[in-house]
Amino acid sequence: MAESLTNTAQKAGMSPGTLVHVGSVHDIEPAMWLIDYSKDNVEKRAIASVDDIRHHIDSDTVTWLTIEGLSNVTLIESVGQLLNIHPLVLEDILNTHQRPKFEEHDSYLYIVLKRLSLESGHFAVNYEQISILVRDNFVVTFKENNDEIFTPLQQRLMNGKWRIRNQGADYLTYTILDTIVDGMFIILDSIDENIESTEETLLSNPTTESLATIQRLKRELIYIRKAISPLRDLLSAIPRTDSSIIGEKTHLYFSDVHDHVLRITESIDSHRDMLTGLLDIYISSVSNRMNEIMKVLTVFASIFIPLTFIAGIYGMNFEYMPELSWRWAYPALWLLFVLIPIALIIYFKRKKWL
Amino acid sequence: MAESLTNTAQKAGMSPGTLVHVGSVHDIEPAMWLIDYSKDNVEKRAIASVDDIRHHIDSDTVTWLTIEGLSNVTLIESVGQLLNIHPLVLEDILNTHQRPKFEEHDSYLYIVLKRLSLESGHFAVNYEQISILVRDNFVVTFKENNDEIFTPLQQRLMNGKWRIRNQGADYLTYTILDTIVDGMFIILDSIDENIESTEETLLSNPTTESLATIQRLKRELIYIRKAISPLRDLLSAIPRTDSSIIGEKTHLYFSDVHDHVLRITESIDSHRDMLTGLLDIYISSVSNRMNEIMKVLTVFASIFIPLTFIAGIYGMNFEYMPELSWRWAYPALWLLFVLIPIALIIYFKRKKWL
Amino acid sequence: MAESLTNTAQKAGMSPGTLVHVGSVHDIEPAMWLIDYSKDNVEKRAIASVDDIRHHIDSDTVTWLTIEGLSNVTLIESVGQLLNIHPLVLEDILNTHQRPKFEEHDSYLYIVLKRLSLESGHFAVNYEQISILVRDNFVVTFKENNDEIFTPLQQRLMNGKWRIRNQGADYLTYTILDTIVDGMFIILDSIDENIESTEETLLSNPTTESLATIQRLKRELIYIRKAISPLRDLLSAIPRTDSSIIGEKTHLYFSDVHDHVLRITESIDSHRDMLTGLLDIYISSVSNRMNEIMKVLTVFASIFIPLTFIAGIYGMNFEYMPELSWRWAYPALWLLFVLIPIALIIYFKRKKWL
Amino acid sequence: MAESLTNTAQKAGMSPGTLVHVGSVHDIEPAMWLIDYSKDNVEKRAIASVDDIRHHIDSDTVTWLTIEGLSNVTLIESVGQLLNIHPLVLEDILNTHQRPKFEEHDSYLYIVLKRLSLESGHFAVNYEQISILVRDNFVVTFKENNDEIFTPLQQRLMNGKWRIRNQGADYLTYTILDTIVDGMFIILDSIDENIESTEETLLSNPTTESLATIQRLKRELIYIRKAISPLRDLLSAIPRTDSSIIGEKTHLYFSDVHDHVLRITESIDSHRDMLTGLLDIYISSVSNRMNEIMKVLTVFASIFIPLTFIAGIYGMNFEYMPELSWRWAYPALWLLFVLIPIALIIYFKRKKWL
Amino acid sequence: MAESLTNTAQKAGMSPGTLVHVGSVHDIEPAMWLIDYSKDNVEKRAIASVDDIRHHIDSDTVTWLTIEGLSNVTLIESVGQLLNIHPLVLEDILNTHQRPKFEEHDSYLYIVLKRLSLESGHFAVNYEQISILVRDNFVVTFKENNDEIFTPLQQRLMNGKWRIRNQGADYLTYTILDTIVDGMFIILDSIDENIESTEETLLSNPTTESLATIQRLKRELIYIRKAISPLRDLLSAIPRTDSSIIGEKTHLYFSDVHDHVLRITESIDSHRDMLTGLLDIYISSVSNRMNEIMKVLTVFASIFIPLTFIAGIYGMNFEYMPELSWRWAYPALWLLFVLIPIALIIYFKRKKWL
Repeated sequence: MAESLTNTAQKAGMSPGTLVHVGSVHDIEPAMWLIDYSKDNVEKRAIASVDDIRHHIDSDTVTWLTIEGLSNVTLIESVGQLLNIHPLVLEDILNTHQRPKFEEHDSYLYIVLKRLSLESGHFAVNYEQISILVRDNFVVTFKENNDEIFTPLQQRLMNGKWRIRNQGADYLTYTILDTIVDGMFIILDSIDENIESTEETLLSNPTTESLATIQRLKRELIYIRKAISPLRDLLSAIPRTDSSIIGEKTHLYFSDVHDHVLRITESIDSHRDMLTGLLDIYISSVSNRMNEIMKVLTVFASIFIPLTFIAGIYGMNFEYMPELSWRWAYPALWLLFVLIPIALIIYFKRKKWL
Repeated sequence: MAESLTNTAQKAGMSPGTLVHVGSVHDIEPAMWLIDYSKDNVEKRAIASVDDIRHHIDSDTVTWLTIEGLSNVTLIESVGQLLNIHPLVLEDILNTHQRPKFEEHDSYLYIVLKRLSLESGHFAVNYEQISILVRDNFVVTFKENNDEIFTPLQQRLMNGKWRIRNQGADYLTYTILDTIVDGMFIILDSIDENIESTEETLLSNPTTESLATIQRLKRELIYIRKAISPLRDLLSAIPRTDSSIIGEKTHLYFSDVHDHVLRITESIDSHRDMLTGLLDIYISSVSNRMNEIMKVLTVFASIFIPLTFIAGIYGMNFEYMPELSWRWAYPALWLLFVLIPIALIIYFKRKKWL
Repeated sequence: MAESLTNTAQKAGMSPGTLVHVGSVHDIEPAMWLIDYSKDNVEKRAIASVDDIRHHIDSDTVTWLTIEGLSNVTLIESVGQLLNIHPLVLEDILNTHQRPKFEEHDSYLYIVLKRLSLESGHFAVNYEQISILVRDNFVVTFKENNDEIFTPLQQRLMNGKWRIRNQGADYLTYTILDTIVDGMFIILDSIDENIESTEETLLSNPTTESLATIQRLKRELIYIRKAISPLRDLLSAIPRTDSSIIGEKTHLYFSDVHDHVLRITESIDSHRDMLTGLLDIYISSVSNRMNEIMKVLTVFASIFIPLTFIAGIYGMNFEYMPELSWRWAYPALWLLFVLIPIALIIYFKRKKWL
Repeated sequence: MAESLTNTAQKAGMSPGTLVHVGSVHDIEPAMWLIDYSKDNVEKRAIASVDDIRHHIDSDTVTWLTIEGLSNVTLIESVGQLLNIHPLVLEDILNTHQRPKFEEHDSYLYIVLKRLSLESGHFAVNYEQISILVRDNFVVTFKENNDEIFTPLQQRLMNGKWRIRNQGADYLTYTILDTIVDGMFIILDSIDENIESTEETLLSNPTTESLATIQRLKRELIYIRKAISPLRDLLSAIPRTDSSIIGEKTHLYFSDVHDHVLRITESIDSHRDMLTGLLDIYISSVSNRMNEIMKVLTVFASIFIPLTFIAGIYGMNFEYMPELSWRWAYPALWLLFVLIPIALIIYFKRKKWL
Repeated sequence: MAESLTNTAQKAGMSPGTLVHVGSVHDIEPAMWLIDYSKDNVEKRAIASVDDIRHHIDSDTVTWLTIEGLSNVTLIESVGQLLNIHPLVLEDILNTHQRPKFEEHDSYLYIVLKRLSLESGHFAVNYEQISILVRDNFVVTFKENNDEIFTPLQQRLMNGKWRIRNQGADYLTYTILDTIVDGMFIILDSIDENIESTEETLLSNPTTESLATIQRLKRELIYIRKAISPLRDLLSAIPRTDSSIIGEKTHLYFSDVHDHVLRITESIDSHRDMLTGLLDIYISSVSNRMNEIMKVLTVFASIFIPLTFIAGIYGMNFEYMPELSWRWAYPALWLLFVLIPIALIIYFKRKKWL
């Protein structure tokens, strides 16, 4: 996230409207593929040039164009010109540090949001910006990466039996949003597991690493929240749009995704509360351990200090110390050396210090 | 709750609108029973097939159908078709991890909420999702379990004297909601008792278990709040509905349940504040105990350290130590060994360290 | 408060609309008294039967009926029938665990709130639920107890010179609310005194009792806030009512009470902030005391440990220890035994550890 | 502030509308002075009797009447009658524990707010209630004290060159509010200085007094916030009034004061955050100091304990201890007594404990 | 910031509308330069006298006048008269402690905000107040300093290829705001780096300096937030203006800047959360270090205390101590002196105290 600001900062000196790719993913070879479908037909193919798209734009069939990789600015600029996209929107598509938002333009809607995914191997969340342009019968998605998030969706489209084929671009938009939002539950699951395992570790053996884990999870939640919370407004704004692109029949579907987002943000808040609880446990456990160590010191010191003193007395070299010549003095002292610790230990046990 | 996310996550790859039971209760044999009543008659029977319901749908009498157990997806799907329910609603009914909500559809209202109950034996809250479909003169409740929450309600319906028999489906809906909400007071009572007993334990003997209890109660309150707080909006939305299903006369009743929910959420907030207070007491008690132990060490060490030093002096082997041969030196030293501790103890008492 | 939930929970199984007295005050012998007044006449008398009220209902004079003690359910039910009160309202009157609220009904207004009073002897707040029914020219107040809160008001009514006699039921309602709200200032005063005295104790001698006092005050404030904060909405709703019962001329008076409630809630919030501050002081004081004890131990130990070591050296029994036979060795050592502590004490003073 | 509640509490038993002076300032001899001005003339004089005001009320010139000292209830009542003021407003003027507010009445506006000033000598904030009644061409200010806050304003009025003389009562009201609000910046300055000097003290030498200062500042900020935050609503309400008394041309001026109040409240919030930061520093500093003391004890003890043990060994009286008769044993031991501490100190330095 | 209040406080006694420069930058020689451009022409020149501006005011070309340095009050007053600016606005321009705000006046719009920049060398944020007056085809910016923030913008204007030359004063205003807002990302970057490096330091070696850095960053964030958060309202208010000065086509551009501000404020909030996390780490690290030191003391003391006691026993001078004359007693004791520490170390290792 730090790096994202740096990038934006680097762009700070430029004129607004200059199209530059601002992002951290540069090594993706840009690729385009397109699915064109109607109730009866469906066709999927890779696209090499922008001209291949042109005849789909005003056709009756629904067309879904996906552009993976944002480093080819010229390509995206020409798509923008073809679809008559506002320069600021193109700039937002290319700058992958957008806040999720929904904008209504005259002939199209613009949605930008983050897709969250887990890095395999260890707990780390990846953020991929996905921009969605929705026109009548035409949806364009711009992705930073060439991952497989849309693969199940494509397969369902290609597979003729699914109800989506009867529906328009608005329903397609819904399924795209639904796919992205549902993916976030996996992240929350993982956080949940991390919290649980951290809690167990904490109670048995609190280490500085546990603290670092808590802080890392906390920070990750801060970022996730930042990426997700604007979705609430976004998704409640879509059904309220005046645009005819979003049909009234799909409002219910967007409300459904909205419900999911509400559930996710509420879970994030619960998780934050729980992490605060974990911190309390950590601090408490650490201080408990210290107390235990203190107790041992107290017992050792308190037991031996008086004994050593007594031994010291009879190590003195006074001429007139009658005890020194008593026959049973030494054994009697040994008795004392045994009885005093026993008495003290009983006392400490009573005080519940042991 | 963790597991709920996992389930939803598993469903993440599926197409929206696919009906699957997502929940943790699978071992309930689905059962249906139906109560049909009017001012003068009342009839209760178990239902085996969906066809048995058909003739009740548009009858003049009020019909209450309850389906217990959600694992039979086909059954619920056919009920949905019979009543012309939107696929998304059916999906919500089957997915038991819904956020409580209220939806108005053309011919019916959909309410989904959580019923909270206490596990017997120890403190643990169970969450059961209950969906309510309200049509004119026809109410369907979908439950995950076959518990007895509705038994008193059924008995009052069967028992002819009660005013509900004069009323419509809206009043029945109210009584169902009222039953569910009133059940939550029992949970709060139990939390209250737990807090009180924990507080007593804390002041007398703070242990790590007390801390764990506090954290457990805190977490439980987070979950309960998540289940209850959406009810406020839900219950204030019901009387504002345009639908003719909710008669104006019952608005006051729904407001009454709304008041109860407000009371419950306020109690939850108070409880959270109190738990934070308990945490303060815990931390404070632990550090008080440590202080007490520290004091003992201080007293022991501070008393014996100077004495041991004095004994050490007269254990030295110098040839010219005149005291060594004094007649009363040893008894005088004993006097010192008694007087120094007394002086120190008086000093510590004055300083209020003892 | 815990017990209130228990009571409500006990009622959970009952049918809504069943009139039962739910409350903790059962030993009050129900009593009714009535004041009837107009500009020229005023009359006060005790009422034995509901029939005695009937002719006052639609009279031109203003009538104030007070019912003390809620255990006689039949009585209250018959008053309800006489005045045509909705069953839910009667239920609310009898269930003394209501959240303060204001409801408009066709022919009457219903206000329910808590009266706070201090138990004499020690700091403890009593909560009494007072319900007010306002009709044209007729006000009924239902009280749990037979305390004297309304006595000054009655006296002023009986005493002919007061302006209230020229006014209607709305002004009477205002004076009743004003009396109840103004009584809360006494509670806040008492809390204020408690906070101040606790603070003084804390700085001089922080004990576990101080902590318990802080927690007790905190909890009390949570309860008081719960009882008072709904009054803000309540009192701003009264002047906005469409009902003709509240004349426009009295709006200003209700705003005045509203201002008082605002002042009270702001004071409660300040008090909570101050209690949090007290907790900081407590924790700080405790750790300061511990530091002081630690310092003494450090000084004692650090001074005597080296001395004891030196004494130990010359207690060794080596044959070749030339110092042992030196004439001035022993006095020189004594000098050392004096100089080392002095040096250390100076060092510690410089370090500000003493 | 505590005392203010007590006073209000004392008034609790009285009938509303009874005019009594409730406040802490009783020893001010009530005084009245009046400035009457128009574009061309200005006249200032002391007023002895209410009758002297009468002919100014409906004159064309603007009149500013100031009443200092509120103990003469009769005087204020007769002013009230002369200007036809509502009894509740008079009551509010006399009760100096009002929450700042703005009320529109038929023929006048009523503004009440607090003027904050610093007590000279030490940091303590004085609160003076100032009530402002605004009529067409007539402004009355009621003050508790006879301080000089309005002196510069009077001088500017008397001095003919100033633009205010061309303006009406609304502009005069603005200048009065502006004077009061601008005076609050001095308080904030003083708090700022206090925070800075406390911070410096904290880092060098954290004492319990620093903690007390932090708490005192915190409490003072709580009170100041209570006095100032209602001004935001008040000042945004004034330009929205329907009353013709506030001309549209002065709206901008009231917005300007509103901006100042916003700046002040934001500063207060920053200050609170900073004080919380100071508390963190305090706690941290105290625990750092304790750590330092602990370290010294550790070093002293850890160095001398093994040495003392070694000396103890050779103080034993066994017959067969060959080392005792070795020629170089004693000097060798001395070498050990020097080397062990050096080794330990190097070890501790490496561990960064020294 | 403290000083800003002082300045305002000094102005407190003056009459409102008196033009005085209130700010901390006095040593800037006031300078004016002007850029006049249309689609085809562009001209930049320094301005010496206000008269040079006059003919640009109502010309068709767009004119951007920048005034650097605010100490020449007469100059600014004459510009104000020329453009018919309200005295309060002039006052705000000269008082550099304004809260960012947007005001609509009849013939012009007034925007005031803070430009944030980093002092080179170390982390410190500079705040420069920039006021923008927008008329039809005429924009005036008032700056405290003569820094180079607008240089890239000027260059782009002078360089003929840029789209801004086709646009009006509203678009120019947007680019100015965009430049100022984008500059804030650099600050956030720097804070981000500071937080990261502090975190690393904290985990390895927590010092009081780390704490001071955390507090300094916290305070800086408080100030930055105060400077930035009003921009949200400001920027959402601009497109909602009724004024014809802001054309509908530029609304989208202002929304874009609004999005940036939202991103910045969200980042600030995240940073604050992270700093709170750092504080937790700091406190935790400090207490961990203390625990480690405690452990060493415990081990040293616990090992040597019993050994010293044993040595003390055989240093006693009793006549009848048979062990003293045993041949292998002394070597056996040495064995004990080795075995006891080993046993204790194994015990402590098991307890995980080492």
